[in-house]
Amino acid sequence: MNVIGVDLGGTKILARSIDVTTSKAKKRVKSPTPKDGPDAVLDEIAAVVAEVDPDRGCSLVGVGVPGLLDEKGVVSQCPNIDGWDGDVDVKTGLETRLERTVVVANDVNCGAVAEHRFGAGIGTPDMLAVFVGTGVGGGLIIDNQLRVGARGMAGEIGHVTVTPNGRRCGCGGRGHLESYAGRAGIEAEARRRAASGEPNALVTLAQTGKIKSRHIEQALAEGDSVAHELLSEAVEALATGIGNLATALDLERVVLGGGVVDKLGQPFVDRIAKSAAFGGFGSRTCELRLAERLDDAGVLGAAIIAAERTP
Amino acid sequence: MNVIGVDLGGTKILARSIDVTTSKAKKRVKSPTPKDGPDAVLDEIAAVVAEVDPDRGCSLVGVGVPGLLDEKGVVSQCPNIDGWDGDVDVKTGLETRLERTVVVANDVNCGAVAEHRFGAGIGTPDMLAVFVGTGVGGGLIIDNQLRVGARGMAGEIGHVTVTPNGRRCGCGGRGHLESYAGRAGIEAEARRRAASGEPNALVTLAQTGKIKSRHIEQALAEGDSVAHELLSEAVEALATGIGNLATALDLERVVLGGGVVDKLGQPFVDRIAKSAAFGGFGSRTCELRLAERLDDAGVLGAAIIAAERTP
Repeated sequence: MNVIGVDLGGTKILARSIDVTTSKAKKRVKSPTPKDGPDAVLDEIAAVVAEVDPDRGCSLVGVGVPGLLDEKGVVSQCPNIDGWDGDVDVKTGLETRLERTVVVANDVNCGAVAEHRFGAGIGTPDMLAVFVGTGVGGGLIIDNQLRVGARGMAGEIGHVTVTPNGRRCGCGGRGHLESYAGRAGIEAEARRRAASGEPNALVTLAQTGKIKSRHIEQALAEGDSVAHELLSEAVEALATGIGNLATALDLERVVLGGGVVDKLGQPFVDRIAKSAAFGGFGSRTCELRLAERLDDAGVLGAAIIAAERTP
Repeated sequence: MNVIGVDLGGTKILARSIDVTTSKAKKRVKSPTPKDGPDAVLDEIAAVVAEVDPDRGCSLVGVGVPGLLDEKGVVSQCPNIDGWDGDVDVKTGLETRLERTVVVANDVNCGAVAEHRFGAGIGTPDMLAVFVGTGVGGGLIIDNQLRVGARGMAGEIGHVTVTPNGRRCGCGGRGHLESYAGRAGIEAEARRRAASGEPNALVTLAQTGKIKSRHIEQALAEGDSVAHELLSEAVEALATGIGNLATALDLERVVLGGGVVDKLGQPFVDRIAKSAAFGGFGSRTCELRLAERLDDAGVLGAAIIAAERTP
C-alpha cells in the first residue's frame, strides 16, 4: 500500500511516496518551511505532496508535525515553526487543499513507529524511542502499538525529573532530562559557564550561533574539560531517565536517535548503558540500540501511522 | 461468572468466591500462611479453596502471589514467604491439587486490576496503581489492559531512581523510591539516625519490633521531628517517581494504596499531589486518588485476571 509521508520540520518539509508494507520509498521532495505562519505552511505541504504524487496515485497522506496535537488533528503548539499561534486544524486544512485523507501525528511518535516497524525496534512488542536533539523527545510502543496517552504526550521523557531541584528546564520545571541532555540545555550551561569565567570550546566553536552536535563532537575531540563534564552529565541524565522507564515498564529495548546521538554514535549509547546511573531492575535486561532509520524516520513513520489508522 | 480469588500473603492466605461481573463476594476464608515451604503453602491454598467452594460450583481459581512469576505460572522469587527457594510451578501444583483451572498473577498487579475495574480507577483507560507498604509496588493499566512487560515486572515503580546516588535500596541500588517511601526504608533510616545520636519516636514506639504504619502515624502526631523529616522525604520521593511516570506515560490518573497510604489517608495523597517535586508536564493534569478496595483488592483482582485470561 502506497502512502505519502510528510515530515514537517522547523527548517524543511520532506515528503515521499512510501510502500508501507516494505518501507520502500519512491520520489523524494524537499522544500524550505515557510516562515509566514500556518496557512503558508499548509500551502507548501500541499505543493510538496502534489509534486511527489502528480498523478494522484495515493489517496492517503500521513503528516508528522513537531508539536502537540489532539486526536482530531488540531495542532495547538508548534514552537519550532515560525508564526504558529493558537490551534490550527491541520487535518481539515490539508484535506481541503489535497482532496485526500490526511492523518496527522506527532513527529517524534512517527520516528518511534518507523524504528519499531523497520528499524532498531524490530521484534520487540514494547519499546521506547528517545530522540536527543535540541530537546529530548520520545515515543512509546506497548504491545506493538503506539501509545499517545491522555493528551497525546506519552513518551515525553524529556520532562521527567532526573535531578531534584536541578537545572532550570525550558518548560519552567527543574532538573528535567532535557535540560541536561538536549543541545539547548547543554548550550545554556556552556554559555553560563563562559559568562562566569569558564571559557570553553563549545562557546568558542559556536561563537554567537547555536551550539550544534558537530560543535559538541569537536569540543570533546579537543579534550575540552567543560564539554567533557557536560557530556558526562548528559550521559548520567539519560541513563537515569531511560533506566527508570525501563524499570517501570519492564522494557527489553530502548532505541536512541536524534542529532546528538547520530553524531556521537555507538560509543555514546554504550556510555549510557554502562553508566552506574542506568539502574533499577529494568536496566539489567534492557538493551539500548542506536536508531537505524535516521533522516527518513519521520516520513516513513507518518505514512505507517496513516495506514494503520485508516480503515 | 463466579471465580475463586486467592490472595497469598506473607502472614495469611485469603480466599473468596467472587462474581467478577459485579465484584460481589460470597464466602470468605482466611488461614495463616504455612512457614514450611512451597508444598505446605500449596496444600493450604487447596484446603482454603475447598472450604470456600465445597460443592465445586467454581471451576476457575485466580491466585495472587507476592513474587516474580512467568507467564506459565512458575514463581521464582517470593521473598515474603518462608522457605520459598528456587522455581515453584504454582499453576501446575494447584491444578493437580484442585482439579480446577488455576491462573497465577502477581499480587500487586491483582490490586491494580481490582482498583481499575471496581475502585478508584473506574473510567480511565490508562492508570498506574502504587502500593506503599513495607516496600513500594505498582501495577500499570494501559488501554484498559494490565501490562506485565518483558519479564512480568512492569509497574515496579519502587525501584526507579528518585535521588541519584541516594539511599541504599534493599535491592542493592541507590536512591530508589522504595528506600525513601517504603516502611522498611523508613525504618532503616530511623534506626540509623537513632544509632548515630538522633533518638526518634519511630524507634521508641517500635522498640525492637518492626516499625509499622501506625507507629509512623503516632510519631507524626507526637510532632517527632525525625518522623516528619522522613515523611517529607517519602512524599518528595513519591511525587518525583509518580510525576515522572505520569509525564512519560501521559497518565490521567494514579491510584495510591497499601498499608502506609491506608493509614495516613487523603492528607498524605494531597501532600504528594501538591509537592513541588510532583513535576513534569504529566503531573499538571494527572489526578491522584486514594485506593478504594483495600483488603479485598487482592482476591478480587486475582479472580478478575483469572476470568479475563481464560477463554
